[in-house]
Amino acid sequence: MAELAKLPGIGRKTAQRLTFHLLKQPEDIAHRLADAIRGVRARVVTCATCGNLGDEDPCPICRDPRRDAQILCVVEEAGDVTAIERAGRYRGRYHVLGGRLSPLDGVGPDALNVERLVARLQNGAGVKEVIVATNPSMEGEVTATYLQQVLKPTGVRVTRIARGLPVGGDLEYADGVTIAQALAARRDMTETD
Amino acid sequence: MAELAKLPGIGRKTAQRLTFHLLKQPEDIAHRLADAIRGVRARVVTCATCGNLGDEDPCPICRDPRRDAQILCVVEEAGDVTAIERAGRYRGRYHVLGGRLSPLDGVGPDALNVERLVARLQNGAGVKEVIVATNPSMEGEVTATYLQQVLKPTGVRVTRIARGLPVGGDLEYADGVTIAQALAARRDMTETD
Repeated sequence: MAELAKLPGIGRKTAQRLTFHLLKQPEDIAHRLADAIRGVRARVVTCATCGNLGDEDPCPICRDPRRDAQILCVVEEAGDVTAIERAGRYRGRYHVLGGRLSPLDGVGPDALNVERLVARLQNGAGVKEVIVATNPSMEGEVTATYLQQVLKPTGVRVTRIARGLPVGGDLEYADGVTIAQALAARRDMTETD
Repeated sequence: MAELAKLPGIGRKTAQRLTFHLLKQPEDIAHRLADAIRGVRARVVTCATCGNLGDEDPCPICRDPRRDAQILCVVEEAGDVTAIERAGRYRGRYHVLGGRLSPLDGVGPDALNVERLVARLQNGAGVKEVIVATNPSMEGEVTATYLQQVLKPTGVRVTRIARGLPVGGDLEYADGVTIAQALAARRDMTETD
């Protein structure tokens, strides 16, 4: 119970409920979970190319020859790769930073997978565009601006994902910062539609 | 109770709670509420210029000489004006459509305050840009495309508010359509930052 409660989002009560659940199940259910938990660190490897998590190095996306190697989408965490893949429209490759700049938490540029990103742009692999898809949070924006500066000398085009009103949303219930951003980043309709 | 329950978002139980609340209050509380409800249709007028609701015609925004008359922000409902005003960054004026195109609900172009919008652009008042801020819903997008076509002959620049990831949001929890839109509408960082 105490060990389960150390997981994020699992409080004392949930830990208790999960423990009682495990006690009621056949013993091999608990054993299989224990083995999976023990094995996860051993089986999941970090892709040396892009920093994504997978069962092999290079990861399935870096290995896939059908993915466009001219576009790199830079994200904070491996979970963001999953989110973008779920959207199903992106055909380029990724670069996972492993975090975001956060001076208050002591996370500086050295803690992020940036050196490797610069190397990927300089090794003649033909990357033409880097899409900075760090989160639209304050730390994500600071990280984006930092990347823009670091990548400028490479001469590669650096773009930023759009911030604005989420699709299906309602102006009336949107927060003020998002509305201000959506107005500021408006585009000519002939361009987009 | 039955009359209260006809209001949107007020069910049978809430109507009962409100009724008992009113019964427990001094009688003049109920009378003041009744008078306010009776008076609301009489006191609130639609601005003949922009279609916004207010206590006078023209509405306070159309009357305000400090508001930029060269930019019109087109919204679906008066509540959207309130939302954008709350954001506090927009200094232009508005045009309220009074709805959105919705063939399924029988709402066609004639039901919207569009004729008056075209007239505002043609009357020499010097409008230079129309920002289409209909909701990022399917009906809002259809309405936006319709407006673009209708306004094209006026020669006035027509822009659309940005759709993308809401500020402060998290890529990992964003829906796929929004992520796809945020990637498609990405911008060069040198332009925006």
